[in-house]
Amino acid sequence: MSTRRIAVDAFGGDLCPAVELEAAVRAVREGIEVVLVGDRAQIEEGLARYKKQGRLPAIHHAPDRITMDDTPGKAIRAKPEASMPVCFDLVKAGDAAAVVSAGNSGAMLACGLFKLKRIRGVDRPAIVTSFPNPKRATTLLDMGANVECRPVNLVQFAVMGAVYATLQHQLARPRVAILANGSEDSKGTELTRAAHRVLKAHPSDHFDYVGYIEGQALFSGVIDVVVTDGFTGNVLLKTAEGTAAAIVDFLRTSVAASPLSSKLGALLMRPAFREFKRRADPDTYGGAPLVGVEGIAIICHGGASVKAVLNGIREADRFVRDGLAPGMREAIDAHASLFAAARAEDTN
Amino acid sequence: MSTRRIAVDAFGGDLCPAVELEAAVRAVREGIEVVLVGDRAQIEEGLARYKKQGRLPAIHHAPDRITMDDTPGKAIRAKPEASMPVCFDLVKAGDAAAVVSAGNSGAMLACGLFKLKRIRGVDRPAIVTSFPNPKRATTLLDMGANVECRPVNLVQFAVMGAVYATLQHQLARPRVAILANGSEDSKGTELTRAAHRVLKAHPSDHFDYVGYIEGQALFSGVIDVVVTDGFTGNVLLKTAEGTAAAIVDFLRTSVAASPLSSKLGALLMRPAFREFKRRADPDTYGGAPLVGVEGIAIICHGGASVKAVLNGIREADRFVRDGLAPGMREAIDAHASLFAAARAEDTN
Repeated sequence: MSTRRIAVDAFGGDLCPAVELEAAVRAVREGIEVVLVGDRAQIEEGLARYKKQGRLPAIHHAPDRITMDDTPGKAIRAKPEASMPVCFDLVKAGDAAAVVSAGNSGAMLACGLFKLKRIRGVDRPAIVTSFPNPKRATTLLDMGANVECRPVNLVQFAVMGAVYATLQHQLARPRVAILANGSEDSKGTELTRAAHRVLKAHPSDHFDYVGYIEGQALFSGVIDVVVTDGFTGNVLLKTAEGTAAAIVDFLRTSVAASPLSSKLGALLMRPAFREFKRRADPDTYGGAPLVGVEGIAIICHGGASVKAVLNGIREADRFVRDGLAPGMREAIDAHASLFAAARAEDTN
Repeated sequence: MSTRRIAVDAFGGDLCPAVELEAAVRAVREGIEVVLVGDRAQIEEGLARYKKQGRLPAIHHAPDRITMDDTPGKAIRAKPEASMPVCFDLVKAGDAAAVVSAGNSGAMLACGLFKLKRIRGVDRPAIVTSFPNPKRATTLLDMGANVECRPVNLVQFAVMGAVYATLQHQLARPRVAILANGSEDSKGTELTRAAHRVLKAHPSDHFDYVGYIEGQALFSGVIDVVVTDGFTGNVLLKTAEGTAAAIVDFLRTSVAASPLSSKLGALLMRPAFREFKRRADPDTYGGAPLVGVEGIAIICHGGASVKAVLNGIREADRFVRDGLAPGMREAIDAHASLFAAARAEDTN
């Protein structure tokens, strides 16, 4: 009998455990099964105020916690009873189906690797993120788990990204591209060219590989999945966030310095800005799933709001019900010859 | 006797030669010495309409032209009489001090390398671009000339970027950083860590090396020069452009779909948007200088407007007068031991 419980790390984010508790309570009210993991006394104290509101999340005691200052690999060995690794132990033991945490993302990756283990056939898991586009959202991976990649890693990101996008956006055949500095075959690095050659030469039944795309295409809606190494993915994400913040700041400053008419304009434009903020807000997307491991793990950012953690829990719940994990396993098996070809391209 | 003439490739951009001619005529009116390079008959025909307006740019005949479809290295050998390589021949012969072209940027790089040659001590030249920040502009290099880099390349980009920023923004000691996926020393790739170690261990008299920065810092004004490989730099530039365009599109669409009040708001906000567009417009910055070669070469984008090419010519003229080329040479010489240390870090 398989469980659908979502293990929520109560001591992950900057405002823990208040944010996690509120998110968990709301998720339970929506009918999602949640177990809060962390110091029982503190969780019970925090949940006291919700007592009159019906059923509460379950609690699983874990006395310790991993902080943002902990070195990921070391922390999970040194603190086996911290809330985050205990969440993963629950999944491993079959007592939970997914983990949601706003804690140290390096430690999340380490827990995924060492506790859940990689899906057989996967060389490296990846972290997925989403960019808003006019139609739905563009899936980007890897956004930071693998700073140095080999061709087989990018090829596997293509397959895992396609499975993710298929489930997340009900796409029959997602369009997958590799990020590069131009669209011609001669562009890119040795790494991207090798992955590009292999993906072009081995068409997949699961997705359409459309070749290289440039950074602008993230927002266009012509591509569903964008594949890149974790260094570039991370730089790109931060640059996009920085650009958006700079534009909003600039407009705000201009308005503050301008005559009445422009201030009035700002007031009247407010609904459009608010809708933009909602769509661009990372909280709207919940968290960043770690794909390629045996189980479901959602990484929320440290400053995640209640809404973000709640969306992360909803996402985990949806992935459990839609079978993201078995879907990944199947797709990985189905692409074994593709991966063998990619390994043969390895220049190292 | 050294010349101050700027050689303008009349047959570079998408709208050539009309855009180049108009920009050259305006530059001459401002007192800049310009020689237009390309088919003499076509240039004379194009200049006819400006005849009554006083002195015109000089003309240097070059019968052929390089197109966007030409393979850079091949084109400059196969078309030695094309307008672009002839511009570089003029600089080489001492008949011009700088080149401005809106043509094939790969061919610009090839011309810089093979005709002007690298400054002694420079391994690879780089292309510079600028991002608006609240104070002035952040200098980023490389934005595409070197897709695969070694530690010594990044270290040289730091030195050349510092010389550029010092001249361009009158900075005594520019703050220089390496782009990475986090600020801790353990972040980054083998490449960035090697360059980071060397720059930390060898303080420069010309600039302050402040360590790693993330993508958002491009827009903050806390950093003057950001160093990265050409693949990441190019992806980042396109992503920032894509983000800005997506935001503007989104706001426009929201307004079109909204009730009167929001439309009125848009009308009233127009001055702020216009000022934003001016600041974010790549045309405001003219072109992207190629640094590290013996001479000055400014690469304008193919779709460059008259304003962009004119700004490119003005920039070239300013660099000639301010001595960008001798400044580069001096700085390269002064950092010989830094570069030696960087070469020792080379893992290849």
